[in-house]
Amino acid sequence: MPTQFLYIIDILGTISFALSGAFLAMDKKLDPFGVLVLSFVTAIGGGSLRDIMIGNLPVSWLTNSTATIVIFSSAVGAMLFSRFIKQFTTTLFLFDALGLGLFTVVGIKIGIAKDFSAGVCITLGTITACFGGVVRDIMLNNIPLLFRREIYAMACIAGGLFYYLLRQLGIDGELVTILSILVIFLIRLIAVRYKISLPLFYNSTI
Amino acid sequence: MPTQFLYIIDILGTISFALSGAFLAMDKKLDPFGVLVLSFVTAIGGGSLRDIMIGNLPVSWLTNSTATIVIFSSAVGAMLFSRFIKQFTTTLFLFDALGLGLFTVVGIKIGIAKDFSAGVCITLGTITACFGGVVRDIMLNNIPLLFRREIYAMACIAGGLFYYLLRQLGIDGELVTILSILVIFLIRLIAVRYKISLPLFYNSTI
Amino acid sequence: MPTQFLYIIDILGTISFALSGAFLAMDKKLDPFGVLVLSFVTAIGGGSLRDIMIGNLPVSWLTNSTATIVIFSSAVGAMLFSRFIKQFTTTLFLFDALGLGLFTVVGIKIGIAKDFSAGVCITLGTITACFGGVVRDIMLNNIPLLFRREIYAMACIAGGLFYYLLRQLGIDGELVTILSILVIFLIRLIAVRYKISLPLFYNSTI
Repeated sequence: MPTQFLYIIDILGTISFALSGAFLAMDKKLDPFGVLVLSFVTAIGGGSLRDIMIGNLPVSWLTNSTATIVIFSSAVGAMLFSRFIKQFTTTLFLFDALGLGLFTVVGIKIGIAKDFSAGVCITLGTITACFGGVVRDIMLNNIPLLFRREIYAMACIAGGLFYYLLRQLGIDGELVTILSILVIFLIRLIAVRYKISLPLFYNSTI
Repeated sequence: MPTQFLYIIDILGTISFALSGAFLAMDKKLDPFGVLVLSFVTAIGGGSLRDIMIGNLPVSWLTNSTATIVIFSSAVGAMLFSRFIKQFTTTLFLFDALGLGLFTVVGIKIGIAKDFSAGVCITLGTITACFGGVVRDIMLNNIPLLFRREIYAMACIAGGLFYYLLRQLGIDGELVTILSILVIFLIRLIAVRYKISLPLFYNSTI
Repeated sequence: MPTQFLYIIDILGTISFALSGAFLAMDKKLDPFGVLVLSFVTAIGGGSLRDIMIGNLPVSWLTNSTATIVIFSSAVGAMLFSRFIKQFTTTLFLFDALGLGLFTVVGIKIGIAKDFSAGVCITLGTITACFGGVVRDIMLNNIPLLFRREIYAMACIAGGLFYYLLRQLGIDGELVTILSILVIFLIRLIAVRYKISLPLFYNSTI
């Protein structure tokens, strides 16, 4: 049951990531091929960067035809039905937040399977969840949104710490996964609802 | 004979890719080291990204001294003889289109040797041929030209599909290679001659 | 003794690289997470790119907790004490120049251990020392500084050639290392002191 549940989150998260890439690409008037590439980059960029850094090659999406089909369909759907889809901004935001949680935990587990330290595993989880968006923004010639918007990567890091805390407490693996996803999901919800960003606690001295 | 023919296309394609990187770098007033780097990135970026994603490491250009010498000479040539070389814009365009075809087929074959599906192989071919230019444009702080100009990546994808079609028909390998390169070459020629871009069939809703 | 000396240079170089990433990120008003990422990218980007290209995976910083702690502390320090730290611009410049030398030689040695040709090893050394800054600039939406400022990468290349020259002469390994670092350090000092850039010996023909 939880496996199916996680599978559905994976699909929904992938869709929302792919759509975010597609819409930003359309805003910059890229051609349909460009929109397609940006959908892929957003959805699989983080996982690919993780796989490359740890030597988990070929990168996983090359052998994952479900992901490929979901992303391709999302990109085409974004171009054909953008007005219709944009009515569901809130729904997509919820999918995005769920996906953020799941992808973080997926990255952490892949790190654990390779015997990395907790700090590295949480980093890998955060990269998995967040860096597709970074590559997307670099390709679109923007400074990555991740570095300036409401709490996003910090939700992944907090969720990762929570994941390790629960494991320490000897809680069952599947429950740990689901609770950690929920924590990330909730932090992200609260951050956006109350427009909470990381404080710029430094003095810019330019 | 075809092997030698393909070898010559490889050199000519590499030269035209390297020159495109060099000239764009010079337009942005990079210093000679920057021009050199941009020549390399344009010529070997796509193949390197392919090699990294499939785990074909070290990336191939590190052990290919011919490519290195050709690219280095092209970059130096571009700086010393830019006015002279720019008289041959049409010739360089033809080399570029031939290179595009060859690099696509090379990428497809490397994918096939690793037993990837047809879709992945065509993707790898397209990445091989097109993504050096994407990295070049990102480095030069431009939105990748690939996402907006006359049909370019779509020529690679069409040529890739054609390649698989011919293989299905049981046609001899070398002939398949040459015909696929020709298809990509011709699509590109027609696209530029008649200024055919992918239609922006979506409504930008900003 | 030289080992300890090199270890200290490694730390000092890492600090100055991380600080340069942090300060540039702060200038662009990134949030604290963004400042942290830019510190890491600047300090470990070059070595990671080298590791990825030659298949030395996982990339080395994932298993190097000293580097991680040093970079993390540098980023936090940059945000808390930027005014204080910026008084030491000259000191940081000297650390940076020493780090540049060390990282180049480290990259060359890793290349030699993998039996690459001299040209490839010097390239790997230059990538190790310089390309963290390139990724940093790309992420901050700038054209890489490396391609336009006072002699920087050329110092690495010159130091690399010097390294091979000394080895040819049969000089002891540790001495070769230290002398090559010094050459790179001195070239960089002289270049900045006398504002020596690579001449734009080409005619920009736009």
